Amino acid sequence: MKKGQPKYLEISKDIISKIESSELMPGDKVPSENELIKTYRISNTTARKSLLEVETRGWVRRIKGKGTYVLNRREDMHLTRLLGSFDAMRESFDENLIKEGFTPRNIILEKTILENGISTHVNDKTYSIEGPVLKIHRLRYANDALMKDEIRYVSMNICKKMHMIEFDRSFIKIYEDKYHLQLEEIHRTLNVTILNPDDENNYFENTTPMATFILNGVILIAEGKVVEIEHSYYRGDRYRFSTRTKPKLMADKQ
Amino acid sequence: MKKGQPKYLEISKDIISKIESSELMPGDKVPSENELIKTYRISNTTARKSLLEVETRGWVRRIKGKGTYVLNRREDMHLTRLLGSFDAMRESFDENLIKEGFTPRNIILEKTILENGISTHVNDKTYSIEGPVLKIHRLRYANDALMKDEIRYVSMNICKKMHMIEFDRSFIKIYEDKYHLQLEEIHRTLNVTILNPDDENNYFENTTPMATFILNGVILIAEGKVVEIEHSYYRGDRYRFSTRTKPKLMADKQ
Repeated sequence: MKKGQPKYLEISKDIISKIESSELMPGDKVPSENELIKTYRISNTTARKSLLEVETRGWVRRIKGKGTYVLNRREDMHLTRLLGSFDAMRESFDENLIKEGFTPRNIILEKTILENGISTHVNDKTYSIEGPVLKIHRLRYANDALMKDEIRYVSMNICKKMHMIEFDRSFIKIYEDKYHLQLEEIHRTLNVTILNPDDENNYFENTTPMATFILNGVILIAEGKVVEIEHSYYRGDRYRFSTRTKPKLMADKQ
Repeated sequence: MKKGQPKYLEISKDIISKIESSELMPGDKVPSENELIKTYRISNTTARKSLLEVETRGWVRRIKGKGTYVLNRREDMHLTRLLGSFDAMRESFDENLIKEGFTPRNIILEKTILENGISTHVNDKTYSIEGPVLKIHRLRYANDALMKDEIRYVSMNICKKMHMIEFDRSFIKIYEDKYHLQLEEIHRTLNVTILNPDDENNYFENTTPMATFILNGVILIAEGKVVEIEHSYYRGDRYRFSTRTKPKLMADKQ
């Protein structure tokens, strides 16, 4: 760190270098004013100026009442989504986009109640939800680009009046907060396929063939009861999925 | 369950129905003779006959000294690989295939020592291994179909004489058993791409464009030191990846 420059500049450069090295990733929260005050032993004026500097330079976005988040400035504009983390699943699609600096938009293509229920295969296992089932087909955009074509089926036996609920958060949070469900397990599989421009039901408006992730998922509560079945497409030219595995659990098994 | 049929047939049908319903998945171990004896309170002759019956019908394969495993009889012959599980990572590619009833075959395309080390991006973070680094490029087949095109870079500062080691198990097991390394974290990302028949360095021999998973991974030990960098392609018409997430960890964070 250079001497002779104002403290707030030093600190803002520190934060920016962490973003540049990807120690802080798009959507990650950067240290708050209070954390900066503690870490660097600075006044709150200096802390505020440090964050403002990082924001002015376009690296982060402050979201009122939430915190300051790293914007997605990747050249390829890829979104990375953590797999296998329940905490990550609790975050809504829109929230994640906002934190990374995108404007989310949703089009509900279909919202219907299926009286006869639904069955599906996830990883060759058959899962069924008895009717009535709420089917929600949503197209999910970031800055006018379709990112995810999402279909969810929700048990209305378990989630009464689900069709009356506002989708202002992740479905998992709705199950937990509104319906006080104890979720037991979430199974998901990722396949890949090629979507061609003229494929039926391809909403992505790609002009050349596009590699696409297919996510199939099922959310279970006690006794193997299915709350939700998901079948979604993620555009492969804008998404990657990641996992972080720690071998801590070694002792648990075997 | 029907009465009037021999006990061993009843039990074998029980096991087969669990395979059909995917309660037991390809590569899963079926109950051993001893476990059957306990569960069903039968003689060991009956237990042996039960397992033999399931094997004769082609649902499982017995591997000497290991156990009896469910064969992959899926119509689409897809292989499912669990993501984010350290135990699953410990199993070698070949072991998994054998358990599912395939014959693995490996071609080492390249095995070289890079004196100057290697750097790579995983999820936009740069990871480096100082030289010397062992580069191993392997083509991994199941029944003569190329399943995975795999490149690994291994630190020979950490794993001395790695080029002399026989690859008879997963690399993770080699790091743990031979080098007694305490692995700290494994980061992986999955991207997708389209491989065309005439693409350079495409070994898959696909005659039409094929959706393909790209796996980038890095294995870390203490102090963020990198033991291994992986860059591999999994053919998308034969693979799917799965996750199972339990919200147990809820209390851990936040």
